[in-house]
Amino acid sequence: MSSDRRQFLTHAAAIAGASLMTPTISSAHPAVSGSKRLLFRYRPYTLALKHVFTVAAMSRTTTPVMLTEVEYDGVVGYGEASMPPYLGESHATAEAFLSKVDLAKYPDPFDLERIIADIDAIAPGNPAAKASIDIALHDLIGKLVGQPWFRLWGLDASQAPVTTFTIGIDKADVVREKTKEALGFKMLKVKLGKDNDREMIETIRSITDMPLTADPNQGWKDRAYAAEMAHWLKEQGVLYIEQPMPKDRLDDLAWLSAHSPLPILGDEGIQRLPDLIKAHERGTYNGVVIKLMKTTGLREAHTMIRMAIAFGMKVLFGCMTETSCAVTAAAQLSPLVDWADLDGNLLISNDIYDGVRVVDGKLVLPDRPGIGVVKA
Amino acid sequence: MSSDRRQFLTHAAAIAGASLMTPTISSAHPAVSGSKRLLFRYRPYTLALKHVFTVAAMSRTTTPVMLTEVEYDGVVGYGEASMPPYLGESHATAEAFLSKVDLAKYPDPFDLERIIADIDAIAPGNPAAKASIDIALHDLIGKLVGQPWFRLWGLDASQAPVTTFTIGIDKADVVREKTKEALGFKMLKVKLGKDNDREMIETIRSITDMPLTADPNQGWKDRAYAAEMAHWLKEQGVLYIEQPMPKDRLDDLAWLSAHSPLPILGDEGIQRLPDLIKAHERGTYNGVVIKLMKTTGLREAHTMIRMAIAFGMKVLFGCMTETSCAVTAAAQLSPLVDWADLDGNLLISNDIYDGVRVVDGKLVLPDRPGIGVVKA
Repeated sequence: MSSDRRQFLTHAAAIAGASLMTPTISSAHPAVSGSKRLLFRYRPYTLALKHVFTVAAMSRTTTPVMLTEVEYDGVVGYGEASMPPYLGESHATAEAFLSKVDLAKYPDPFDLERIIADIDAIAPGNPAAKASIDIALHDLIGKLVGQPWFRLWGLDASQAPVTTFTIGIDKADVVREKTKEALGFKMLKVKLGKDNDREMIETIRSITDMPLTADPNQGWKDRAYAAEMAHWLKEQGVLYIEQPMPKDRLDDLAWLSAHSPLPILGDEGIQRLPDLIKAHERGTYNGVVIKLMKTTGLREAHTMIRMAIAFGMKVLFGCMTETSCAVTAAAQLSPLVDWADLDGNLLISNDIYDGVRVVDGKLVLPDRPGIGVVKA
Repeated sequence: MSSDRRQFLTHAAAIAGASLMTPTISSAHPAVSGSKRLLFRYRPYTLALKHVFTVAAMSRTTTPVMLTEVEYDGVVGYGEASMPPYLGESHATAEAFLSKVDLAKYPDPFDLERIIADIDAIAPGNPAAKASIDIALHDLIGKLVGQPWFRLWGLDASQAPVTTFTIGIDKADVVREKTKEALGFKMLKVKLGKDNDREMIETIRSITDMPLTADPNQGWKDRAYAAEMAHWLKEQGVLYIEQPMPKDRLDDLAWLSAHSPLPILGDEGIQRLPDLIKAHERGTYNGVVIKLMKTTGLREAHTMIRMAIAFGMKVLFGCMTETSCAVTAAAQLSPLVDWADLDGNLLISNDIYDGVRVVDGKLVLPDRPGIGVVKA
């Protein structure tokens, strides 16, 4: 079975060389199957969204991503950077960043502590580009040892939570339609923050009584309104609220977190580890939304989740619109968290990976090494 | 090579069954080589110290330990509980605790998150007994995947620090003799806290100018004296001070941490993860002494180290008098920390394992899977 697996991986690497990575924007290190050097490749890709996606700030129909591969000894690890335009990263910024990454100088791909620190130090920002390398390295290492990451982290895949499915802001008839299509899920996430918050919830409640979650994406500007909505949303069967107010309104958010009957989770307001510590110390939020594209990947995400648990904060694992690559990587850590919003791959029409599945609303992790994806 | 390793492991298991574990106090699950169930065995052992060991509170010549083994599919993982009498655990308490542990009910040894939480919930306290299972499970899992833990944690073994060697409190002539014997080390840890603090340091300084560290073991009762000593010790080339004052003197310790020119590390005052968070929030200490026998093992120790780094606290990895089993397990995490005091195996005359070595003062990790020890 071990030799079977190796054969599959070599095969997968060959496919990658032949199709995915041609035509490619490549680093200076061309793929040589079986090389005992770390090779690194990447190419831009554009995700097509199944539906126009509207949140508090804007609408869009595509998401630019960068697909990455690291290769060592003929084994290929996959990664991805997802870069919704409003967050500031793009194909151009990712290419500029990734072109500076030289993985060939590291003799041992297992030396993640150093490699990831070095990559983080290349330039500030660029969290998605950084995550695309972190994910690919994790995939590679898991494959080299023949284990999925949930096992290397000591987690039980059967403890993976249900995932919410996201309903964007829209007119009542469209929301009604989307809700009907989403009835296979066990929990729905509702985008709020424009002028039809109550209509959004009431429209969905006219179709289903399943648990809901709310994400105003900083859309509420008044803390009294936010508190009133929190009480009303609780009555409507909502479980938590993501980033209700602008991230710089620290005092209002702390007041709301102290007074809301629902947990208030920091999303835009908590990007990386130091933000989490500050949020805990100031009491800004009751919980945190972890996303690989904010945390620069799995390594920092894992530490942040463990710290949040130790702080007594709730943890939601979220995502951007992403292929199954980044979503499945996130799902590897999901048995540790309270809630998951890992539906990014379900919102696109041109996924190129097969990985985590949603069965009866619940995340089902593939029994494959690394992050667990194969080319679709 | 993979089949070689398997053979070695089966052989080691056979040896274990034949010698180490006979006569044995055993759980209800006898060893059956090759069983796809988690088997668990333990036996008491008494470490003989090479020298009478004196710290602020007492002297002794032996340390009781409990040696553990977990076995799965013919692969055996080793663990250990070291129980210096003044900490409250003993052969009797460990046996009482370990006899309640039923590992056979877990189908998958990789399910550490659940298994370790369950063991922690059996009874409060018993940190060393808990660590003896955590260490053995880590050893088993590392062997099952064929990797040492430093690699699974993404660490570079060449980054392992030097270790201090400990000089206990004694008369000047004995201290002089012990210091001469310890000149192969690159850093010495000096036990303080009785009435001869300055004499201890001056005696050692008459022999060597290598860097020193100080451990009064709560022995200083007056914060002004502690601050004065901190300044004097800095002039003497001391790098940090462990637990200078009693752990319940929180205000004095916070004052000292704010005023000392040397980092003040919490040892007796920081046992487990919640203690670390409190210490950070209150500013009680500038750093933390991690010991597997306090943290209940490697899993919580790893999280605590990552948190301490994120808090900007210094980290010293310490130990009790232990065989090379627990010391080598600790050494797997040592590339992450600022300093190491992992000399517990060097202080005993009847070690039964071969693992981490000290070469030119520095910890050198074995290139073996799991925690990396074999029977000596």
